[in-house]
Amino acid sequence: MRAVDIIEKKRNGYELTKEEIEFMVNGFTKGTDVADYQMSAFNMAVYFRGMTDKEATYMTHAMLHSGDVLDLTKIKGVKVDKHSTGGVGDKTSLVVGPIVAALGAKFAKMSGRGLGHTGGTLDKLESIPGYNVGISEEEFFKQVNEIGIALMGQTQDLAPADKKLYALRDVTATVESIPLIASSIMSKKLAAGADVISLDVKVGSGAFMKNLDDAEKLARLMVSIGRLSGKIMSAELTNMDEPLGLAVGNSLEVIEAINTLKGKGPKDFEDLCVEVSAELLFDGGLVKSLAEGLVKSREQINNGKAFDKFVELIKAQGGDISYILNPDKFPKAKYVYEVKSEKDGYVCKMDALAIGHASMCLGGGRKQIGDIIDHAVGIVLNKKVGNKVLKGETLAYVHSNTENPLDVLKTVLDAYTIGNEVVSPKLVLKVIK
Amino acid sequence: MRAVDIIEKKRNGYELTKEEIEFMVNGFTKGTDVADYQMSAFNMAVYFRGMTDKEATYMTHAMLHSGDVLDLTKIKGVKVDKHSTGGVGDKTSLVVGPIVAALGAKFAKMSGRGLGHTGGTLDKLESIPGYNVGISEEEFFKQVNEIGIALMGQTQDLAPADKKLYALRDVTATVESIPLIASSIMSKKLAAGADVISLDVKVGSGAFMKNLDDAEKLARLMVSIGRLSGKIMSAELTNMDEPLGLAVGNSLEVIEAINTLKGKGPKDFEDLCVEVSAELLFDGGLVKSLAEGLVKSREQINNGKAFDKFVELIKAQGGDISYILNPDKFPKAKYVYEVKSEKDGYVCKMDALAIGHASMCLGGGRKQIGDIIDHAVGIVLNKKVGNKVLKGETLAYVHSNTENPLDVLKTVLDAYTIGNEVVSPKLVLKVIK
Repeated sequence: MRAVDIIEKKRNGYELTKEEIEFMVNGFTKGTDVADYQMSAFNMAVYFRGMTDKEATYMTHAMLHSGDVLDLTKIKGVKVDKHSTGGVGDKTSLVVGPIVAALGAKFAKMSGRGLGHTGGTLDKLESIPGYNVGISEEEFFKQVNEIGIALMGQTQDLAPADKKLYALRDVTATVESIPLIASSIMSKKLAAGADVISLDVKVGSGAFMKNLDDAEKLARLMVSIGRLSGKIMSAELTNMDEPLGLAVGNSLEVIEAINTLKGKGPKDFEDLCVEVSAELLFDGGLVKSLAEGLVKSREQINNGKAFDKFVELIKAQGGDISYILNPDKFPKAKYVYEVKSEKDGYVCKMDALAIGHASMCLGGGRKQIGDIIDHAVGIVLNKKVGNKVLKGETLAYVHSNTENPLDVLKTVLDAYTIGNEVVSPKLVLKVIK
Repeated sequence: MRAVDIIEKKRNGYELTKEEIEFMVNGFTKGTDVADYQMSAFNMAVYFRGMTDKEATYMTHAMLHSGDVLDLTKIKGVKVDKHSTGGVGDKTSLVVGPIVAALGAKFAKMSGRGLGHTGGTLDKLESIPGYNVGISEEEFFKQVNEIGIALMGQTQDLAPADKKLYALRDVTATVESIPLIASSIMSKKLAAGADVISLDVKVGSGAFMKNLDDAEKLARLMVSIGRLSGKIMSAELTNMDEPLGLAVGNSLEVIEAINTLKGKGPKDFEDLCVEVSAELLFDGGLVKSLAEGLVKSREQINNGKAFDKFVELIKAQGGDISYILNPDKFPKAKYVYEVKSEKDGYVCKMDALAIGHASMCLGGGRKQIGDIIDHAVGIVLNKKVGNKVLKGETLAYVHSNTENPLDVLKTVLDAYTIGNEVVSPKLVLKVIK
């Protein structure tokens, strides 16, 4: 086999075999038969020609087997996992994990850090003093067996081919290829070993997928890859035209997750968490119907069991639970600025990407790998799409450690479109089963 | 500027600016701002998105200015040049050059070597003992000024960017991109400095362009690049479904060129040479009409002046003219095998590529750069498309230095399709002005 022939075959629109895709991925990862300039031409051909579900599955498996695959058989019970493609204010895992664990599912999740305008679950958890994201695999297994939940960082040797390939895609304008995105995500999800996987594909201004069509293609392809790999899959397409919930920023989002676990969170966010939980429970055979899943999930919030499970999780991984029990303890930003509306009307539209960028500029996110995160800063929305607003009323609070961050304040103001139209945004746009 | 942004812009179908294309070509050639894996992704994006005439012209100029540009102003008169995209049995330059030089044009041509199934003009000339393809630029200028014609090898430093880019395209399945082919050819043609350029774009089984549509696109783009660069351009699309003339192989083709210059060559080949010559003379203002060009060109064959000019050329570059005056002196292959028809009928179709490959296998061409050429071997056709043939009649003669080259004999036989249909092939398929 020669790389040039495989590139040409893909370029000409033919379906590649398992062996051909393995040759490309392995040859590139090992740096033997496939040079980086060949892999980048291949990626661009994939960008234009796409991949069949089978091809994308071969690609996923080739990357998956480039490194460690977690053997979750050491964990008893139904192993469930969820993945979000990344949005602004997305702290869903912090609520869904405790709900499903409280109902007997095993929530064994490896998370990533944030880069760019979307936050990472690990960064949020690290705003809790003492919380250790770097526990060993043995500790991870033990903890999930004992309390049903663990949330740790992705180990270095999970799908290393994906890491190398992503670095190449990043500098060759081939990030935005649906089969490459799908195989990248799914190689890591499959390597993490769960039986039941729920995907949350974000759509809109604050997401990587800007339109519903692309998001649906991505979701369907990931579901297909998962099923072809023997997993029980579901996916939801959810609105990321505005941030999820009200809080954007690390400790601000943890506080919002705590409130939600206590039944005092924003309704849109609580509803999404309950839906995702119900889906995982139903797919995992822990409830008899989706309706039962919805009822039981909501129950865990109302009866305090989900909150208790969250406290258990934080404690098990070394976090200081006094912060969870009393969120006022979280360090606060030096300044809180109010961004006020300049006219009467309704919030017709928001630019979620701009809010994400604003939070990043305050220090809440990373522009580059290695940047240090300021956990206290961020933005708390007071108004969201559909809300009525009067001139002078507060649209959002900017929590900053810099005095008068004028650019950020302007960005947040400009992220709001105030008009006469009354819009009722839908959070879940489509469910894919 | 960043390479990744330029790749993305092209990927998304936008037209690039002069500066952006220069950034890519220069950054890649110098190995500074553009890595080879970025250039290969860029090439693949160009493969899918194409280039506008302007973009391809910027690309051509960026490659042209990566090295020496010949300053032909030292040569008095109208400098004309021709280029063929490569076919089987194409020895046109050997006849066109002397015709136009005999009529006062300055034919200052740099040629390449052959690779694969198409022969190179340099290899053909080197079958003449003593002929020096490696004369200096000074000698080149002097010779053209004195006798109106010189045919030498391309100097190392002509469009070095093209050399580097071609090597990358060759291993990344991006050779077959019309704008990349056009800018590659035109960067070398423009670097060679002529005022009037005639392009012969071969179409068919023995050519790189297999269909008329692609060939026409390529021809039109090259004509446009030339005009946007201030050159007088013309192009012909010519049939390469069968070899040009009868002889395929180095000294065999030189002998056929000599015969043609004496008015005893194959009619199809003589006609093409006369047409190309007339076009160059007319475009160069050396005749008042194309019709006058045709008459005068044919005249140079009949009055012996074109042949005399060819003798002058060979002598000027150190070749032994006794071979030209008496072509029987050319070393002959040890064996001549006749390939005979197995049935009665008409030649309906030929596979020119197969004939080219057969000649290469005999040693007449290179499989890889650096292979040594056997100048004596090759194939002389006795029958071409449209000819009637009887069972047992000779289709072609195979000149070989290997005894019983059975594979080659079979290849040549199989290259003929004998049937009942009487076909009259057209040589010039389209003229583009």
